[in-house]
Amino acid sequence: MTAMMKAAIFVEPGRIELADKPIPAVGPNDALVRITTTTICGTDVHILKGEYPVAKGLTVGHEPVGVIEKLGSAVIGYQEGQRVIAGAICPNFNSYAAQDGAPSQDGSYLVPSGRCGCHGYKATAGWRFGNMIDGTQAEYVLVPDAQANLAPVPEGLSDEQVLMCPDIMSTGFKGAENANIKIGDTVVVFAQGPIGLCATAGARLLGASTIIGVDGNDHRLAIARQLGADITLNFKQCDVVAEVMRLTGGKGADSSIEALGLQSTFEAALRVLKPGGTLSSLGVYSEDLKIPLSAFAAGLGDHRIVTALCPGGKERMRRLMNVVASGRLDLGLLVTHHYRLDDIVAAYDLFANQRDGVLKVAIKP
Amino acid sequence: MTAMMKAAIFVEPGRIELADKPIPAVGPNDALVRITTTTICGTDVHILKGEYPVAKGLTVGHEPVGVIEKLGSAVIGYQEGQRVIAGAICPNFNSYAAQDGAPSQDGSYLVPSGRCGCHGYKATAGWRFGNMIDGTQAEYVLVPDAQANLAPVPEGLSDEQVLMCPDIMSTGFKGAENANIKIGDTVVVFAQGPIGLCATAGARLLGASTIIGVDGNDHRLAIARQLGADITLNFKQCDVVAEVMRLTGGKGADSSIEALGLQSTFEAALRVLKPGGTLSSLGVYSEDLKIPLSAFAAGLGDHRIVTALCPGGKERMRRLMNVVASGRLDLGLLVTHHYRLDDIVAAYDLFANQRDGVLKVAIKP
Amino acid sequence: MTAMMKAAIFVEPGRIELADKPIPAVGPNDALVRITTTTICGTDVHILKGEYPVAKGLTVGHEPVGVIEKLGSAVIGYQEGQRVIAGAICPNFNSYAAQDGAPSQDGSYLVPSGRCGCHGYKATAGWRFGNMIDGTQAEYVLVPDAQANLAPVPEGLSDEQVLMCPDIMSTGFKGAENANIKIGDTVVVFAQGPIGLCATAGARLLGASTIIGVDGNDHRLAIARQLGADITLNFKQCDVVAEVMRLTGGKGADSSIEALGLQSTFEAALRVLKPGGTLSSLGVYSEDLKIPLSAFAAGLGDHRIVTALCPGGKERMRRLMNVVASGRLDLGLLVTHHYRLDDIVAAYDLFANQRDGVLKVAIKP
Amino acid sequence: MTAMMKAAIFVEPGRIELADKPIPAVGPNDALVRITTTTICGTDVHILKGEYPVAKGLTVGHEPVGVIEKLGSAVIGYQEGQRVIAGAICPNFNSYAAQDGAPSQDGSYLVPSGRCGCHGYKATAGWRFGNMIDGTQAEYVLVPDAQANLAPVPEGLSDEQVLMCPDIMSTGFKGAENANIKIGDTVVVFAQGPIGLCATAGARLLGASTIIGVDGNDHRLAIARQLGADITLNFKQCDVVAEVMRLTGGKGADSSIEALGLQSTFEAALRVLKPGGTLSSLGVYSEDLKIPLSAFAAGLGDHRIVTALCPGGKERMRRLMNVVASGRLDLGLLVTHHYRLDDIVAAYDLFANQRDGVLKVAIKP
Repeated sequence: MTAMMKAAIFVEPGRIELADKPIPAVGPNDALVRITTTTICGTDVHILKGEYPVAKGLTVGHEPVGVIEKLGSAVIGYQEGQRVIAGAICPNFNSYAAQDGAPSQDGSYLVPSGRCGCHGYKATAGWRFGNMIDGTQAEYVLVPDAQANLAPVPEGLSDEQVLMCPDIMSTGFKGAENANIKIGDTVVVFAQGPIGLCATAGARLLGASTIIGVDGNDHRLAIARQLGADITLNFKQCDVVAEVMRLTGGKGADSSIEALGLQSTFEAALRVLKPGGTLSSLGVYSEDLKIPLSAFAAGLGDHRIVTALCPGGKERMRRLMNVVASGRLDLGLLVTHHYRLDDIVAAYDLFANQRDGVLKVAIKP
Repeated sequence: MTAMMKAAIFVEPGRIELADKPIPAVGPNDALVRITTTTICGTDVHILKGEYPVAKGLTVGHEPVGVIEKLGSAVIGYQEGQRVIAGAICPNFNSYAAQDGAPSQDGSYLVPSGRCGCHGYKATAGWRFGNMIDGTQAEYVLVPDAQANLAPVPEGLSDEQVLMCPDIMSTGFKGAENANIKIGDTVVVFAQGPIGLCATAGARLLGASTIIGVDGNDHRLAIARQLGADITLNFKQCDVVAEVMRLTGGKGADSSIEALGLQSTFEAALRVLKPGGTLSSLGVYSEDLKIPLSAFAAGLGDHRIVTALCPGGKERMRRLMNVVASGRLDLGLLVTHHYRLDDIVAAYDLFANQRDGVLKVAIKP
Repeated sequence: MTAMMKAAIFVEPGRIELADKPIPAVGPNDALVRITTTTICGTDVHILKGEYPVAKGLTVGHEPVGVIEKLGSAVIGYQEGQRVIAGAICPNFNSYAAQDGAPSQDGSYLVPSGRCGCHGYKATAGWRFGNMIDGTQAEYVLVPDAQANLAPVPEGLSDEQVLMCPDIMSTGFKGAENANIKIGDTVVVFAQGPIGLCATAGARLLGASTIIGVDGNDHRLAIARQLGADITLNFKQCDVVAEVMRLTGGKGADSSIEALGLQSTFEAALRVLKPGGTLSSLGVYSEDLKIPLSAFAAGLGDHRIVTALCPGGKERMRRLMNVVASGRLDLGLLVTHHYRLDDIVAAYDLFANQRDGVLKVAIKP
Repeated sequence: MTAMMKAAIFVEPGRIELADKPIPAVGPNDALVRITTTTICGTDVHILKGEYPVAKGLTVGHEPVGVIEKLGSAVIGYQEGQRVIAGAICPNFNSYAAQDGAPSQDGSYLVPSGRCGCHGYKATAGWRFGNMIDGTQAEYVLVPDAQANLAPVPEGLSDEQVLMCPDIMSTGFKGAENANIKIGDTVVVFAQGPIGLCATAGARLLGASTIIGVDGNDHRLAIARQLGADITLNFKQCDVVAEVMRLTGGKGADSSIEALGLQSTFEAALRVLKPGGTLSSLGVYSEDLKIPLSAFAAGLGDHRIVTALCPGGKERMRRLMNVVASGRLDLGLLVTHHYRLDDIVAAYDLFANQRDGVLKVAIKP
């Protein structure tokens, strides 16, 4: 008889619900992890609303903290019972894309492209949990390519302390890494939600000396100052581009990080740049973007626009947990609410509506 | 009495004419160069048409080959009578921007920005000849920051052989350098005018193994094959994006180079990319650009978009002339026509209307 | 009954002999490849002489060209009967080291370090064939982590054309890639054996415009000129350092590549550098190296010394075979001799003694 | 009548003394700076002892904080009376070397090389103060290439707060920048003198999460912990290599920084590295170095050894002062003693003999 578990599944647009599903079987390169804590991401809300399509019945969620329940026969160097996390993105490091420097893009999935009649590889194919395979908002999750993706949690760190590593810390830090930060730089971070806050903290960690956090919510701006912003600007109260130009003596910022996904923030992130500056984009956009000619110096400004998908893999997770373990950064303060898996529908309701000052919600089976 | 010279000046939109101007006085950091050969660039045509505004009476042109007539008192290591070139962009290497890695952007010029009421540094301010100071379509040109910008021509190279170094070779190669080419890459170059042809040659020089040249003119595609393209596609005869996907087995190109400045080529250059690929843009755009959501993987494709202004300076010129001297590349074949400075109005007429298979025109005083 | 095969095994210093061994069993992540062509490397000669220790009875050789005989149960996307190669180095791309940017170093093997009593990870642990597991000079070889390491041979390429890809082409090219070559550079390559010749070809492919090949053998220097050297210097007939300084007008070379493994070549490779230059080292050294103070500018010369182990993996092999398929480089001319596997003892005798102008020997079962 | 000033000059080995010299005349690209504070560097002690040769009568010192007294006719954008610093290294940014990415190496000076009879460019030629031209331990100093090298001091910063910017902060930070630090790295810094302390602080600023400071002096190790070291090791009390291996679980450090200039520290810095790691060397060595074969993995370890000379220029200085102004780092605590210029002989005596816990001495005319 197949053992069963509870899992939050996508039913239809507007409905994510708890259901009973079989605990998955473990192949030679897999690991079964018993979830102790997981969380809800902004992307999950897009899924809930039907804006990002996933298969009906799929278990959602992609941020696992747990304990190894069972290891595949070919997975070595781990023990059952060990506390682990895995990245939101679990790349296949054997893929061409991974060996070519883009593990998150994977490259294993060839899909028809409507436009040209030809076929193309699917971008973002390294994102599997809650997208292409069952995710983490469940009692158990099956980690694919476990040898590459299981990352042991250092002793002394709580679930809440490492809960941001799989996704928002990795994504936010990547935004800072892509921003080409040099010692003494001025960096502007647009939007101070969980990912923007991590980008702010990452910019601080990488040596920027003037970090300007932008948001419309003063509470978030206060947290931005705690996590590393030197200056914060509420876009409802000032002209952000003009203010950055004033602060930099007309030079413009060395780089900017877009952490929201709107035309307005993308455009402002370009307008604040110095000639030669870098726009590091983290947002998930939902419509075509416009690059204004003037902000782009007609294409002659030596600008760079760089995008990213969250990096994964056990080495990335190891490094992020080291940052936490060394006391460089405590993201525990982002966990504003706790829910049981049984109450996940209520958790979605809170998070999707951004009530009660919520930043991140810890979910425990 | 001031000595006079002939110079091609911008009179008003539609009119560039020869005029008599005083031979300029030489300051301590300048050099006066007697022009032996110069040429007309696509940008000059924009100036002619009034699409790119310059001061009335300004001498146009930015591609000098000549002989040192007189050196400023603080310029050392050169001799009067020496054959030299200088870059189309003559940066001030003492500027903050140059020391910060963007010499072409200079950073010396603070200008009011209409949009925000604040002030910003002018991008592209390293471009001085025929833009901010008198240019090269004249009997003499004053080279600013001469210590940094005068580049001696190696023995044995003709004017025609080095005439492309100041601008189109430097620009085209920069397009290839920005494309992040690795050995074995597939690179698509959109448009095979003089700059696109140099980008094609540059991609070859940097180790790409499948170079796909795109244009609508079969004659230019034939030259592209001579200069390094493995495959050429006439966009009038095929769906370029679909064809690149077919040629790469659905993977997409590692990088693309845009060398025209239109929405259609920019967009195609994005659509042909693999996830993780780089779009290196060289075009001078004349309107806002659109980034289609699907081609951009909603911002999650680990894409890079990089723009460039032509690099200058004596070290850059030295390297480019070495490439010519070593026999790696002969761009003499791009010089399709010769005119005397006295006949420059006719040369503009030919070049602006792209008659007679013209690629580049050598102009000699 | 276990099926048997012939294999060249290390017996004792001075003796590599053919023996019968069982055809290995195939685990879930392995592939069994039937060898059609392999070759002998300089490293194999070190093993033969007992200078590099391997286990008695180990099958030697690390350069496989062959046909997939059997695939492990978890290996997908390949077919039995398909022609493939694999790198001399078959990394475990799931390892921490691979995810950290050094796949050839692997990082899976923790070994006692004699000096400090502590333990350290073994460098070069990604090199498995003929070092840590049975190698390729046999009728069959078991490829570990096959999903990451099997590289299909493009149609139309012969065994001889791809035989250099697994090791010497990958190594030589890495030497050029590590040399930080920019368009217009002067690069000096010390030693023009098979790897040095590939470094010369790689430097050409990457845009160096003055490539100086150094060796004591005029025949090898002639091949160097065929593969890309602009200038060759026979160290028996000139003072190489003085000559490079003369050729560069006293500036020194932008970079140098050491492809032999001796103090004398290492030191010369440092002495020819400009301040700010890069020494890319490929040699396998057999004793402590000395860095002369003067050549090193007392540590103040902004010099870089970079070492490398041959890169492996299917994406690397795919790129190298693309270079061959595109006609950029034909290394077939390095295959000077052919032997049957049955005659491998004679092949070793020829190769180890460098008789008859041998460069590389093709061995066919 | 020529105005005179006091200056500390090199008389002969063992003797640096105050003397009267003429205040220098100002050429078109120079600036005369009235020194308000300067300091003594370890290099000055080498000069004092005759270990590093300079011309007799040369004014020593290379760390200027002062006020612009007079500007050359071609220097724009500054005002007389403005507070400025300049780098210890004042590069000629118009030089080939600077445009080629190595401004500190300058490349303007061609010198005979004893060994080969040929000529070579002098490394470190960007270092001019107290080496090739009169230095800063005087009432006035002439800053060459002033347009590139004068850096205004931001309001609110004291002389002591910016006194480390010209040399040890720039050098120490460069050591960290060259160490290729990524978020989460383990970095070992050998020697915690002023430069090593700055390297420690720089590693912290760049995102290393485990910084191990090594020295034999517990007082310096205590300061190292204040400036960013997570762990400190006294080499007199433990086997540093073994301890680093223990702390990293046998993996080795991601990078190491050598900040002393001895064989023993260089060698240990290599032995602590992981395969694939980087040794960033800052030391000024006084004899040939040995690279032990085992520590170097016989040349196969994907190791990098990178050296550096202190970066200069106004943009570098601007960035470093920004780091101070933003409160990221206060190096004021390194200034342990104050002397008047009149008492500089006593200051040398204290500093050269490292008495009284001296780290850096502020000298004021």
